[in-house]
Amino acid sequence: MKFLVTGARGFLGARVVAALAAQPGDEVVGLYRPRAGGAGPGIACDLDDTPRLAGVLRELRPDAILHLAWFTAHGAYWSAPENLGCVATGLSLLRLAAEHGCRRFVGAGTCAEYDWQSAQLIERATPCAPHTLYGAAKLGLFLVAERFAQTTGMSLAWPRYGFLFGPDEAPGRLVTGAIRALAAGADFACSTGTQVRDFLHVDEAAAATVAIARSAVTGPVNVGSGEAMPVRQIVETVAALVGGPARPRFGALPGRPEDPAALILDLARLHGEVGWRPARSVHAQLAATVERVRGEARAS
Amino acid sequence: MKFLVTGARGFLGARVVAALAAQPGDEVVGLYRPRAGGAGPGIACDLDDTPRLAGVLRELRPDAILHLAWFTAHGAYWSAPENLGCVATGLSLLRLAAEHGCRRFVGAGTCAEYDWQSAQLIERATPCAPHTLYGAAKLGLFLVAERFAQTTGMSLAWPRYGFLFGPDEAPGRLVTGAIRALAAGADFACSTGTQVRDFLHVDEAAAATVAIARSAVTGPVNVGSGEAMPVRQIVETVAALVGGPARPRFGALPGRPEDPAALILDLARLHGEVGWRPARSVHAQLAATVERVRGEARAS
Repeated sequence: MKFLVTGARGFLGARVVAALAAQPGDEVVGLYRPRAGGAGPGIACDLDDTPRLAGVLRELRPDAILHLAWFTAHGAYWSAPENLGCVATGLSLLRLAAEHGCRRFVGAGTCAEYDWQSAQLIERATPCAPHTLYGAAKLGLFLVAERFAQTTGMSLAWPRYGFLFGPDEAPGRLVTGAIRALAAGADFACSTGTQVRDFLHVDEAAAATVAIARSAVTGPVNVGSGEAMPVRQIVETVAALVGGPARPRFGALPGRPEDPAALILDLARLHGEVGWRPARSVHAQLAATVERVRGEARAS
Repeated sequence: MKFLVTGARGFLGARVVAALAAQPGDEVVGLYRPRAGGAGPGIACDLDDTPRLAGVLRELRPDAILHLAWFTAHGAYWSAPENLGCVATGLSLLRLAAEHGCRRFVGAGTCAEYDWQSAQLIERATPCAPHTLYGAAKLGLFLVAERFAQTTGMSLAWPRYGFLFGPDEAPGRLVTGAIRALAAGADFACSTGTQVRDFLHVDEAAAATVAIARSAVTGPVNVGSGEAMPVRQIVETVAALVGGPARPRFGALPGRPEDPAALILDLARLHGEVGWRPARSVHAQLAATVERVRGEARAS
């Protein structure tokens, strides 16, 4: 099969490209923003440059598209107006995909599409009622994409990711923020951390995305570790792995009143229909992340 | 106030422009597609020509935008890929509106956003689960627009129209189709017509839209006559008004199995919060439509 991956130099996209490239017999082409950092193969293409994107699809005629590009600037992405542009480029890509014979489309959804008044998030049962512009943009794109796929005969899957972490995540994010602070001997200020979340290493998320793309599953599919736990436990695990005298300071930062107490992804579809489970535990992946981030800190 | 209306030469838009222009002290500017038919004042502007649209908004700086443009080719619009482009242009307009100081945005929704398994359609209670690409595109745009408006402080209302009719509706639509056939002495083939729907004359819909735009109401607002009745009753009323020997032939066309038995709009918000009710009954508006269509047929 020939796969096209957008956001190919992004946090998740780069790993998806690598995972697809590891499979002999398949072909993978990554699209990345001309201004994106990083290096490697692929095609530089702005998704809002419709004539250029159409030319790329006409030339490549991919069997499947994994659309992972989005505006993800840490902190800003929840309410940035760029979300509107991402919906528009997603729709443009979908339309071109159908026109150029693509049979399978995988778009990147989010657990923020659900109504967070529900603690248990189940794909076809929990109401969708996003609390944020980011969640609304993802859901809005999904709703249109799903119906459009039905009218064109394209098969569409929509992984809804929990909370991803990994060594090269954006500065300011929880896991690597904690590692860097504690490893440098500084106390790490955070909220009380009582909120329960499903954290998943980005390598696992990439493997799940590839498994979904290769499956025939359609519609939304939650992607998580299945090990939902209090954020406090994540931070304490990191602190124990880092060692040393510096400590997390729980409650030093205010909690956000709108933050739900628990968000637990139901993974019956991922386990049963896609047949995918993480290769390693969250603890093992946190340990690997601590190793990697400390190694990079020592090297720099 | 200064109003900007998109789709200003459309079925609904032209009447909204006229209704707004009738109010002394207000200013209204209509935008229409360069290829749109009809005549009259306004500005020709493709909504997907973003630089030109930005220039128009920068120049005009409207207080309120009524975004009524959409792809509406009869029959085709339910599943046409043009719906995707309409979502994108709606998002582009929203973003430019916020950037240029617009404080009020009214977008055209549809009762097709609701889950039609529910007979009673209530704005914040009935689940939204569109059965069509058209409904999904409208709902997708609304979800993003509502959250975007909240992040920017813009006030956004979203009328959800029932089934509009009027003398210059698109060829092939029910009411004028029945009038023209029966007035020409031909029997009028239709389904059994048992399905209950809320039909509203487009002049009333335009008046409701203006009332909503002038109100402070936000979010979805159903717009209908409140006289939901079997489609058969609409056709029988038309036949009685036309007179003559030609008859409707109920059951001559197959019903669509996916057509719900009843779609009844709850109008508590429209009546109570907007304070608007139709000026005339559906019967009176059907009579006026029969008069007008027959007059045009005689004149041509």
